[in-house]
Amino acid sequence: MLPRGRPRALGAAALLLLLLIGFFLLGGDPECERLEPDGRTGDLGCPRCPLTPRVPSDGRLRGASALDGDPLAGHWDHNRSACDPWPQLPPKCELLHVAIVCAGHNSSREVITLVKSLLFYRKNPLHLHLVTDAVARNILEGFKGFYHADQLKPQISWIPNKHYSGLYGLMKLVLPGILPPGLARVIVLDTDVTFASDIAELWALFAHFSDKQVIGLVENQSDWYLGNLWKNHRPWPALGRGFNTGVILLWLDRLRQVGWEQMWTLTAQRELLTLAATSLADQDIFNAVIKEHPELVQPLPCVWNVQLSDHTRAEHCYSEAADLKVIHWNSPKKVRVKNKHAGSFRNFYLTFLGYDGNLLRRELFGCPSQTLPEAEQLHRALAQLDEEDACFEFRQQQLTVHRVHITFLPHKPPPPRPHDITLVAQLSMDRLQMLEALCRHWPGPMSLALYLTDAEAQQFLHFVEASPVLSARQDVAYHVVYREGPLYPVNQLRNVALAQALTPYVFLSDIDFLPAYSLYDYLRASIEQLELGSRRKAALVVPAFETLRYRFTFPSSKAELLALLDSGSLYTFRYHEWPQGHAPTDYARWREAQAPYRVQWAADYEPYVVVPRDCPRYDPRFVGFGWNKVAHIVELDAQEFELLVLPEAFTIHLPHAPSLDISRFRSSSTYRDCLQALKEEFHQDLSRRYGAAALNCPPTVSAI
Amino acid sequence: MLPRGRPRALGAAALLLLLLIGFFLLGGDPECERLEPDGRTGDLGCPRCPLTPRVPSDGRLRGASALDGDPLAGHWDHNRSACDPWPQLPPKCELLHVAIVCAGHNSSREVITLVKSLLFYRKNPLHLHLVTDAVARNILEGFKGFYHADQLKPQISWIPNKHYSGLYGLMKLVLPGILPPGLARVIVLDTDVTFASDIAELWALFAHFSDKQVIGLVENQSDWYLGNLWKNHRPWPALGRGFNTGVILLWLDRLRQVGWEQMWTLTAQRELLTLAATSLADQDIFNAVIKEHPELVQPLPCVWNVQLSDHTRAEHCYSEAADLKVIHWNSPKKVRVKNKHAGSFRNFYLTFLGYDGNLLRRELFGCPSQTLPEAEQLHRALAQLDEEDACFEFRQQQLTVHRVHITFLPHKPPPPRPHDITLVAQLSMDRLQMLEALCRHWPGPMSLALYLTDAEAQQFLHFVEASPVLSARQDVAYHVVYREGPLYPVNQLRNVALAQALTPYVFLSDIDFLPAYSLYDYLRASIEQLELGSRRKAALVVPAFETLRYRFTFPSSKAELLALLDSGSLYTFRYHEWPQGHAPTDYARWREAQAPYRVQWAADYEPYVVVPRDCPRYDPRFVGFGWNKVAHIVELDAQEFELLVLPEAFTIHLPHAPSLDISRFRSSSTYRDCLQALKEEFHQDLSRRYGAAALNCPPTVSAI
Repeated sequence: MLPRGRPRALGAAALLLLLLIGFFLLGGDPECERLEPDGRTGDLGCPRCPLTPRVPSDGRLRGASALDGDPLAGHWDHNRSACDPWPQLPPKCELLHVAIVCAGHNSSREVITLVKSLLFYRKNPLHLHLVTDAVARNILEGFKGFYHADQLKPQISWIPNKHYSGLYGLMKLVLPGILPPGLARVIVLDTDVTFASDIAELWALFAHFSDKQVIGLVENQSDWYLGNLWKNHRPWPALGRGFNTGVILLWLDRLRQVGWEQMWTLTAQRELLTLAATSLADQDIFNAVIKEHPELVQPLPCVWNVQLSDHTRAEHCYSEAADLKVIHWNSPKKVRVKNKHAGSFRNFYLTFLGYDGNLLRRELFGCPSQTLPEAEQLHRALAQLDEEDACFEFRQQQLTVHRVHITFLPHKPPPPRPHDITLVAQLSMDRLQMLEALCRHWPGPMSLALYLTDAEAQQFLHFVEASPVLSARQDVAYHVVYREGPLYPVNQLRNVALAQALTPYVFLSDIDFLPAYSLYDYLRASIEQLELGSRRKAALVVPAFETLRYRFTFPSSKAELLALLDSGSLYTFRYHEWPQGHAPTDYARWREAQAPYRVQWAADYEPYVVVPRDCPRYDPRFVGFGWNKVAHIVELDAQEFELLVLPEAFTIHLPHAPSLDISRFRSSSTYRDCLQALKEEFHQDLSRRYGAAALNCPPTVSAI
Repeated sequence: MLPRGRPRALGAAALLLLLLIGFFLLGGDPECERLEPDGRTGDLGCPRCPLTPRVPSDGRLRGASALDGDPLAGHWDHNRSACDPWPQLPPKCELLHVAIVCAGHNSSREVITLVKSLLFYRKNPLHLHLVTDAVARNILEGFKGFYHADQLKPQISWIPNKHYSGLYGLMKLVLPGILPPGLARVIVLDTDVTFASDIAELWALFAHFSDKQVIGLVENQSDWYLGNLWKNHRPWPALGRGFNTGVILLWLDRLRQVGWEQMWTLTAQRELLTLAATSLADQDIFNAVIKEHPELVQPLPCVWNVQLSDHTRAEHCYSEAADLKVIHWNSPKKVRVKNKHAGSFRNFYLTFLGYDGNLLRRELFGCPSQTLPEAEQLHRALAQLDEEDACFEFRQQQLTVHRVHITFLPHKPPPPRPHDITLVAQLSMDRLQMLEALCRHWPGPMSLALYLTDAEAQQFLHFVEASPVLSARQDVAYHVVYREGPLYPVNQLRNVALAQALTPYVFLSDIDFLPAYSLYDYLRASIEQLELGSRRKAALVVPAFETLRYRFTFPSSKAELLALLDSGSLYTFRYHEWPQGHAPTDYARWREAQAPYRVQWAADYEPYVVVPRDCPRYDPRFVGFGWNKVAHIVELDAQEFELLVLPEAFTIHLPHAPSLDISRFRSSSTYRDCLQALKEEFHQDLSRRYGAAALNCPPTVSAI
């Protein structure tokens, strides 16, 4: 569904945007774009209710009186007791176009909630045109290659602007110039709107534009443009209350015909002779243009942009209406706005904030399918699985393509440093309480994959905001992998976190471990000293210990650690349950060691290591409990990584209740049998890739 | 919103049903019931699309050919490219009536999902008429006094029936006789339908009934009634494919006029002369009546009952339709049905299965408010809270009225036994893994409150189903309290579990504790021996210990426990962190004790005790961590309960990561200050109730 010929404007304007689809959107016929109904052709002999808005015949809207007196002045009548404005909906399967400007980490989260509400109610295929900055593009591309975009700041950066949206709000002005020339109409949305109805009903309102009308807008629901909010408040010019640009119907080809770009540029330049800057970004300019050319605007029913700003008069709209269509959180306080009815509106928003996006993978029945090749391949692979296979659940989980939201929270990439190390780990909700301690123990960059539901992702956000320790850190990148399927996809999570590590080295840890306070500095010094990278292909082993106490004084040195070990307060990791996992580290030698020493790989070895960022990925076939780290070390060994144990390094496992996965492993023989089968398949694959000789030993049946 | 005059039929028929509302439904004018539009009066001069269904003029539907040939035969045309059937919607604020039959634990869960989907899309006030058995009534009443109901088995129990719905399906036949006589029209729904649109659109179809039509139904989407599904399949008589009764529009007053009761009774009696039993319950009888009186039925568009039975031909319906309205899971496999598109449909269902019901607390703007007095009182109390108060969050949490679903899973009440004891505890998702061990340690009845989101409640259901240990137990009652607010409402949860304990005694435990294997028997013997209840007002103290190891061999006797204590593998509970919590138990004395001994209450004492079921409730002001159990023991002491320590009883705490609440307590001075303030308020309240003399000591500032 990429535009067939890249419009020339694209290269020139160094911009663009667009599109996606893939997972959410199935169906949709790009041919439909060629259909350009004139707004009346949908009528197949059915008489319709009169839909013309009650605008005075001079084309001007009434000003202040509109909301004070007649609540519906300037709007259509929404009371069902009168004639219902059921516009002719666009035909089944017609593609609808939506443009959204989205920049930065926070908007990239916000836009997801908007898109979820859109997709929930829509019945037509949608084409999203996203104008993004580099941060949002990076995030949203990770969101399954959905989006593709660029920048167009030069076109609007000359406009001084005081609005909190910064430059990005202004970008709506240039959409007619940057969207594909073949695109006739588009709906433009702010990221802070929430749909409560099918966008096709909004699209249908294009049919009621007169020949001269090019922009559909809802009137402002605050007194801002009336200029009476406070003393010396001098707003930009507007017709009466003016219009709100959170929801815009743009008739693009007509805008191009009337010379939109020149029109708004001239107006803005002229107004800026007397006004210092725009206060409400693009909205000031749209209104100034409309004041001059009122014939351009088609006023829309107020329910399509119910504005919950601080001093909104929106109640006049929604208490009369049969039905809410779009809620606009246009206060800088967003959903925290104080408003008599904010609770009810907030519940709409929260519905989609926490909505499991996986559930939007629904077909548009009866529309031509536009499944992506990867999706089709996946579908075939899933269909080939044998439901009777004992490992069915494992194989299904392995094939699951999770939604991923990288850098869910604001993050500053670390400055490039030749020996820098990122701690890599993964966790789910039940380990959140480890994060603060981990931040105290590891002052360097971290890349963490979190396995969460959409609702849990919001709880996580609040958790970080409430924690001074966590919110002070800009170098911890949190990547949300959305939950799907019954087994914990441990290695897929590790691979997500690993792929997002931006330093030359990574410390591959687990969330239940706290590293020695000095470990970050010590590891960097060791990498430099040992001349890793240039001279040696090595994995640095960080010896692992465990405490069984959940209140515990962390040793500040190797000497203190050894004392705790001797007093029985600490053990070497899994000493009682699974000694072979760490035995090759040779703890007796470590106790005395003054310099790094080399150890040999042995079956079931699973140390915590520091390796270059481009190390082998984890094998995603291991899901749930068992053999997930072991397999990775086997592969490091097959690639002939030296294993060097560092004499001053250590990390300590804190106790926790057994995970549900480990409980299943212990109680289910199928689970154990299946793990054995997966191990054997892994070894076969490995011998194919590295040759049997590279593998030091055959797979063994191990008991835990 | 209770009917004003109880119809006489009610008492006589020993039935009824109805109603609700309170939390979900705000607004709604009972006066509207007196309006009885004749189906055409909604027209205020607006021409409408012709809406008559394409039924042959003889009034009979085409049979088998309907789905094979023209997919829309017998239905309205739903393709938007033709004339849209937008019926006149009922006026804003008009009350719509819905009747549902609901029986047993499983239907009581199912109906919640249906109601959530209904409420999500509705824009009108709704009046739910629920016909329930005793189990469902008990559950749904606990669900915030929503529902009220009774039985009417005698009226239909004479009909032999082989359908899996048992007798309950048949109850739909008697609705015209049991619903209030003033009620003109009602929509009847099976619990296995899911709404994907506003029920007002369905209600609007009443307007298209002719004067003779009394029942609106969607045609069957399987071949069942054609009798060709297998050899010797002899279905009940029906017009062609017959109709499905999962969604019914009943014109009640007309049904009463035409003598519905006699009509269906005669038909059923006659058919039963040649047919052994109904196969599809009420549906067989409805169809037999319609076969005889086709003029009674108004066929409805197929989208209002998309039937996903095993051999459904529903695809003909939904691939043509612009829009799905109602999905019907009418296979005995329910949402697990195999179907090419089941995944997409299931996502609709899962949306509401996991939907946070709290978000349905939305106002119907512009409709007269019908808030219940308790809700108004609560609203006032919440409004009076001071947001600047350090304890604001605590007080808000305390006032929160949670949705509660008692006996979420099938449960058999214990037989009455004079010394029986229910273990009472509460937990959230992160302690699920304790349940199996707890079941092994406590073979008696349990009453557990689970603090979960709607989505977690489903995970919990799957967890129990997957566990042979848990699913074998019928004497464990699980009560779901739905999460709302930032603090864990520990004492509200304890009170829910306590209120549902059905034995004369309760063991007030915590979820992290495993009791001695023999404790259940030993406690019952002790109660008998000590002649509690009749002779003494006592609380039996079960001494508490803790292990710091998460793999651990549980002592099978007091002797073994003492050995572990001596070897340092066990400690008395919170020995290191909070010794005063259990010091009064006098562990030194317990070690030697052969008989129960009395101990004196002291500040901060919080033993685990066995008390009569009617013991004082926990004080709900203590939420989150701290002082929640201590306060309860203070009150037991104020009520002059003897504290008797049992010499052979013990319970052991297993380790776990610190909860987020305890972390907050440790890190926040506001939290600690607030807890101190709440303690003081509690003591003041207690002295008012029991007199200062009854309290052994003033509140103390304690450090943890």
